[in-house]
Amino acid sequence: MQVSIEQYMQMVGQNAREASRFLAGASTFEKNNALSAIYTALVNNESQILAANQIDMTQGREKNLDSALLDRLELTPTRFKGMLQGLKDVIALIDPIGEITDLAYRPSGIQIGKMRVPLGVVGMIYESRPNVTLEAASLAIKSGNAIILRGGSEALQSNKAIAAAIQHGLKTAGVPENAVQVVNTADRAAVGQLITMSEYVDVIVPRGGKGLIERITHEATIPVIKHLDGNCHVFVEAQADLHKALPIALNAKTHRYGVCNAMETLLVDAKVAEEFLPRIAELYAEKQVELRGCLEVQRILGSAVKPASEEDWYEEYLGPILAVKVVSGIDEAILHINKYGSHHTDSIITENFTLARKFLTRVDSSSVMVNASTRFADGFEYGLGAEIGISTDKIHARGPVGLEGLTSQKWIVLGDGQIRQ
Amino acid sequence: MQVSIEQYMQMVGQNAREASRFLAGASTFEKNNALSAIYTALVNNESQILAANQIDMTQGREKNLDSALLDRLELTPTRFKGMLQGLKDVIALIDPIGEITDLAYRPSGIQIGKMRVPLGVVGMIYESRPNVTLEAASLAIKSGNAIILRGGSEALQSNKAIAAAIQHGLKTAGVPENAVQVVNTADRAAVGQLITMSEYVDVIVPRGGKGLIERITHEATIPVIKHLDGNCHVFVEAQADLHKALPIALNAKTHRYGVCNAMETLLVDAKVAEEFLPRIAELYAEKQVELRGCLEVQRILGSAVKPASEEDWYEEYLGPILAVKVVSGIDEAILHINKYGSHHTDSIITENFTLARKFLTRVDSSSVMVNASTRFADGFEYGLGAEIGISTDKIHARGPVGLEGLTSQKWIVLGDGQIRQ
Repeated sequence: MQVSIEQYMQMVGQNAREASRFLAGASTFEKNNALSAIYTALVNNESQILAANQIDMTQGREKNLDSALLDRLELTPTRFKGMLQGLKDVIALIDPIGEITDLAYRPSGIQIGKMRVPLGVVGMIYESRPNVTLEAASLAIKSGNAIILRGGSEALQSNKAIAAAIQHGLKTAGVPENAVQVVNTADRAAVGQLITMSEYVDVIVPRGGKGLIERITHEATIPVIKHLDGNCHVFVEAQADLHKALPIALNAKTHRYGVCNAMETLLVDAKVAEEFLPRIAELYAEKQVELRGCLEVQRILGSAVKPASEEDWYEEYLGPILAVKVVSGIDEAILHINKYGSHHTDSIITENFTLARKFLTRVDSSSVMVNASTRFADGFEYGLGAEIGISTDKIHARGPVGLEGLTSQKWIVLGDGQIRQ
Repeated sequence: MQVSIEQYMQMVGQNAREASRFLAGASTFEKNNALSAIYTALVNNESQILAANQIDMTQGREKNLDSALLDRLELTPTRFKGMLQGLKDVIALIDPIGEITDLAYRPSGIQIGKMRVPLGVVGMIYESRPNVTLEAASLAIKSGNAIILRGGSEALQSNKAIAAAIQHGLKTAGVPENAVQVVNTADRAAVGQLITMSEYVDVIVPRGGKGLIERITHEATIPVIKHLDGNCHVFVEAQADLHKALPIALNAKTHRYGVCNAMETLLVDAKVAEEFLPRIAELYAEKQVELRGCLEVQRILGSAVKPASEEDWYEEYLGPILAVKVVSGIDEAILHINKYGSHHTDSIITENFTLARKFLTRVDSSSVMVNASTRFADGFEYGLGAEIGISTDKIHARGPVGLEGLTSQKWIVLGDGQIRQ
């Protein structure tokens, strides 16, 4: 029997919704037991999974995929071990579900509190990294959610093999296999269905390029935990301790280039620009970082810097390029960050207590820092245990999102016969 | 110069965004000062506001609006006093903004915490109740948000007069008047603009009938704090104390009929049905509540009950009608509630500890209760101080939503020069 993409996705959605009811009621023991069974199934099926990945790799090479994509696609025995370690880490995480907080009496005599509960069904859309399949599935199970996985078509064989092992593990542990489903088609229409099946899917988590995420956000009728760009700033304030400012400015730009929490624009207070800029420029020169500066930066650094255009202040370079601007003080710095930044992560370097407090309050970003490198904006560094993603939204979850991002809270009311007067 | 609805709404949005930047940085003193100035302006303009309301009332009568709508539209001196008291209550609320929680050290030496911040710009869409204009505006200001108000066209003159007083108060207090804007047109296209201007509006709060809210949710590209229907259940379990079950079942249905937290279906365990049903039926009969029962209920109560159809289990009657079903135990009760209910509020009446715990965990509703009337599901009863609305969503806010629903949390990081290793 031929089924349409729509019919197929509706079935996937219904299956997920049913499985989510089981998972929502599952105990921590049951969920960890299922994750352990998945671990065993993956170990037992390593050769099949790596073989399936080789099919994807061969097809990818035939299609002339670029080398970066092929690199993300490849599963080596070492990477497979890393995936298994990640699964162990998730088993070790504290189960967030069922936690009751803020239980307090009200004048009516009832007790009111909040209980943490799963969202229900997660729709995960990602590019061709097969390791995400296991990571997302294990986080969903741990937080009591069913998950529908839609990976890049280039990784379909790998994802199907990983999902087969996961489902085998679930079955062994007595958990409905439909708790984890891989969308079994490369047809793009499946994504359109997934992001609009609001009766079956509670949240969409996309991972991938900005284009993909913008398209999903625009078309989705389901809430999206989305991460767009990271145009992060470090502001070296007039009372900065340069022994802190220099290593932080260097670290924030050069620790890793292709990451969303790397600094893309450096702001320097005019009062310290003459002293600070030549010293940091020397450090950047060693790392071959290209500088693009405002007129004042150009005056101070001369030919070591290129002119910055208006577009540079908006740019997420994700590479060894940095925009640099001299500002008249904290007010101009905050205005600049709130206007040109992407509300991701911004840091002030200062010894002044009042200005640090002002910066923390006024900068409208998901992470605001004092005397620390923007590179710390990360679920693991923040102690979340695992990272679902980094949200640039304000609703539901902001900044690094841990397991809690896949949960919600319901109210509980305990009484002994109270009625409303 | 003629401007299109789109141009007009874009201007309103830009103005709101600008004003929101001011409000986000305003101190509690500044915000309360602005609210006090609004109070004074309202007191000074009472006669103008009541006169504007009379214009709306006259036009409403000419248009033959139904009496319930005219009643909601009317502003009497007593209702005006009530509005002023509501404003005083908001001034007395604790300012949620700036609160820092969970500040803790990480192994790297940085300190991580969360700071509560405003969402930015709230878009409020509501029907013809002019008191909502002040209530929404005052809650927005208190939580540091700008607000765009789009009330029912029947209340346009009233809303414009109230908004004029609010803006006068804001001006007196040195706060941008655009912090509170009333959409100055009855054209429905303005709503379509409001719910899709994601660059200017951060959250939509609709209040009104189910039809309005479904339409908004379907078309919005901005997160919506929405409240759909309330099909609430009380489950009288086999070990219920009937001295609690009888008053709760009576209160949950008859305390008020037209509210979302009223019980619409009563579930009774078969083991106590013979004893409980005739007694509660007598109490309902006194209140002239129509009962619609399953076959077993019909057998026990005879002609006192009408047959219930499948549709009755889904129904939100909002009136003196109640569906009644005998179930075989807690498992059937939970299945029934999760299938037919609207995930709003459901209560179990039992003395059994283990079953109470099971009900709390397994029922997937925004409020789950033990031995209490569903009528308690309310922001004021829950101690939230004010109620923005009741959310039937799981994302961002669930159940009664207080001032916190108009806020978010950003991460703050305090260091003394840490860089990422």
